[in-house]
Amino acid sequence: MPMATIIDGKAIAQTIRKEIADEVRSLSQNYNKVPGLAVVIVGTRKDSQSYVSMKRKACAEVGIRSVDIDLPEQISEEEVIAKVHELNENPDVHGILVQLPLPKHISEEKVLSEISIEKDVDGFHPLNIGKLAMKGREPLFQPCTPKGCLELLIRSGISIKGKNAVVVGRSNIVGLPVSLLLLKADATVTIVHSHTSNPESIIREADIIIAAAGQPKMIKGGWLKSGAAVIDVGTNAVDDPTRKSGYRLVGDVDFEEANKVAGWLTPVPGGVGPMTVAMLLKNTLDGAKRKFTQ
Amino acid sequence: MPMATIIDGKAIAQTIRKEIADEVRSLSQNYNKVPGLAVVIVGTRKDSQSYVSMKRKACAEVGIRSVDIDLPEQISEEEVIAKVHELNENPDVHGILVQLPLPKHISEEKVLSEISIEKDVDGFHPLNIGKLAMKGREPLFQPCTPKGCLELLIRSGISIKGKNAVVVGRSNIVGLPVSLLLLKADATVTIVHSHTSNPESIIREADIIIAAAGQPKMIKGGWLKSGAAVIDVGTNAVDDPTRKSGYRLVGDVDFEEANKVAGWLTPVPGGVGPMTVAMLLKNTLDGAKRKFTQ
Repeated sequence: MPMATIIDGKAIAQTIRKEIADEVRSLSQNYNKVPGLAVVIVGTRKDSQSYVSMKRKACAEVGIRSVDIDLPEQISEEEVIAKVHELNENPDVHGILVQLPLPKHISEEKVLSEISIEKDVDGFHPLNIGKLAMKGREPLFQPCTPKGCLELLIRSGISIKGKNAVVVGRSNIVGLPVSLLLLKADATVTIVHSHTSNPESIIREADIIIAAAGQPKMIKGGWLKSGAAVIDVGTNAVDDPTRKSGYRLVGDVDFEEANKVAGWLTPVPGGVGPMTVAMLLKNTLDGAKRKFTQ
Repeated sequence: MPMATIIDGKAIAQTIRKEIADEVRSLSQNYNKVPGLAVVIVGTRKDSQSYVSMKRKACAEVGIRSVDIDLPEQISEEEVIAKVHELNENPDVHGILVQLPLPKHISEEKVLSEISIEKDVDGFHPLNIGKLAMKGREPLFQPCTPKGCLELLIRSGISIKGKNAVVVGRSNIVGLPVSLLLLKADATVTIVHSHTSNPESIIREADIIIAAAGQPKMIKGGWLKSGAAVIDVGTNAVDDPTRKSGYRLVGDVDFEEANKVAGWLTPVPGGVGPMTVAMLLKNTLDGAKRKFTQ
């Protein structure tokens, strides 16, 4: 039975982090300054805390200064926005990341739209998305997870130009922007979503599949074209009584089945996840470089 | 031989213009003010002059005040931008349209990005495109031609949700934004372009086709699924010695062939063209309404 080449996101992310660390070191030598990333967390959600501590640790490893902002659950929207404004003005901060979700009494849209476009390392500002979409325009920052998906393809030697790419899911943070990136890379792009009547037959024509639907094991081996490149963005917790935690993470793709059909395949975890953090560091580095060389 | 239902863009546009005229009249009665559209032309290109005079005439017919700005070919970029700023400040102007192309010594991107987002009736500002792309966000103005395509479908009773839609072409002014509009309307969207390896087989799966490639008669009858809705945005001049002008306009779709296969079909001219102007009037009306009711 043929086996897919497993795309080792952890190893690729490690290579990228090494490249970033080298660049940070040389920036520090040339300008006597290092890039800074403000990571803002509101409240005490366990999952958010774990993401945030991962991001802060990743900063430290490559020499990026992490500016830690921990705000209480009860803080008002105005106070969060005031903090964002303060970070916008802080010359040592080159990127601002507000960990989502925010508590219900705070509008995420309002808070995110207050982040200076020059420090929007998540790349979620509508002006950035518009420039991402438009031919001949480039955003200051590409969203991290979509950018990570493209990096995985490129660094695995998978060509994108002229290929049929199918994106499953159309969220603002993954599906939509990754479609726009693939289109800019000259793929023929189809976006499949919950209203699509025939996802299987569309996915079967795809040379490249980006699965970002948030549906555990939704995509079966039989849905895939032989030799396709499959990037699985899904990170779904499913019950697993054999684990101490009581759950394990699975992707949107049935890995065991896909492994027999696909040409390339990312695992979950260890595929796209580590790339998201690496791209966040890269965006912060790029933001700092723009400032230092102004 | 079955024949497609011809979508009469001219008649639908006429209905919309009548609706707009009624609204302008009632605005004028309630607020003692009328919407105003500034139509800016630089230089003396024959085609641009003809488009501009058509737009100005269309304004007059529905009671929108047309503010005519005719600038000489040799004007500097700074002077054009100064004129745009003046129109941004003018409270009688609710929409600003700069006819493209501009002379080579003037950057279109720079000039267009100076138009106030609240008067960007063409809807081309990247912030508008970003909001068009994003779920849960809405732009102040949708670009006119894409909006016209959707109106043709809706007013012809063609449902979009869950249908396979294929957009041929990915320009910033038609292909890209019409894809985003179809996606927001819950179609499954594929964007086909010059690097697509198998356009025919993709188009053959489409329930809805928006042809905006600028390639005369590129799409043959045999490329279409029986009963498909075909919106032809192409307006290509081809030589025709039997005409006094020496040319005639044809679409991106082979009309004679498509007419035997498609369920619905727009003619060229008389399909999308009149809708673009009607949507420009509609956007100007909407911009004025937002101001009047503030």
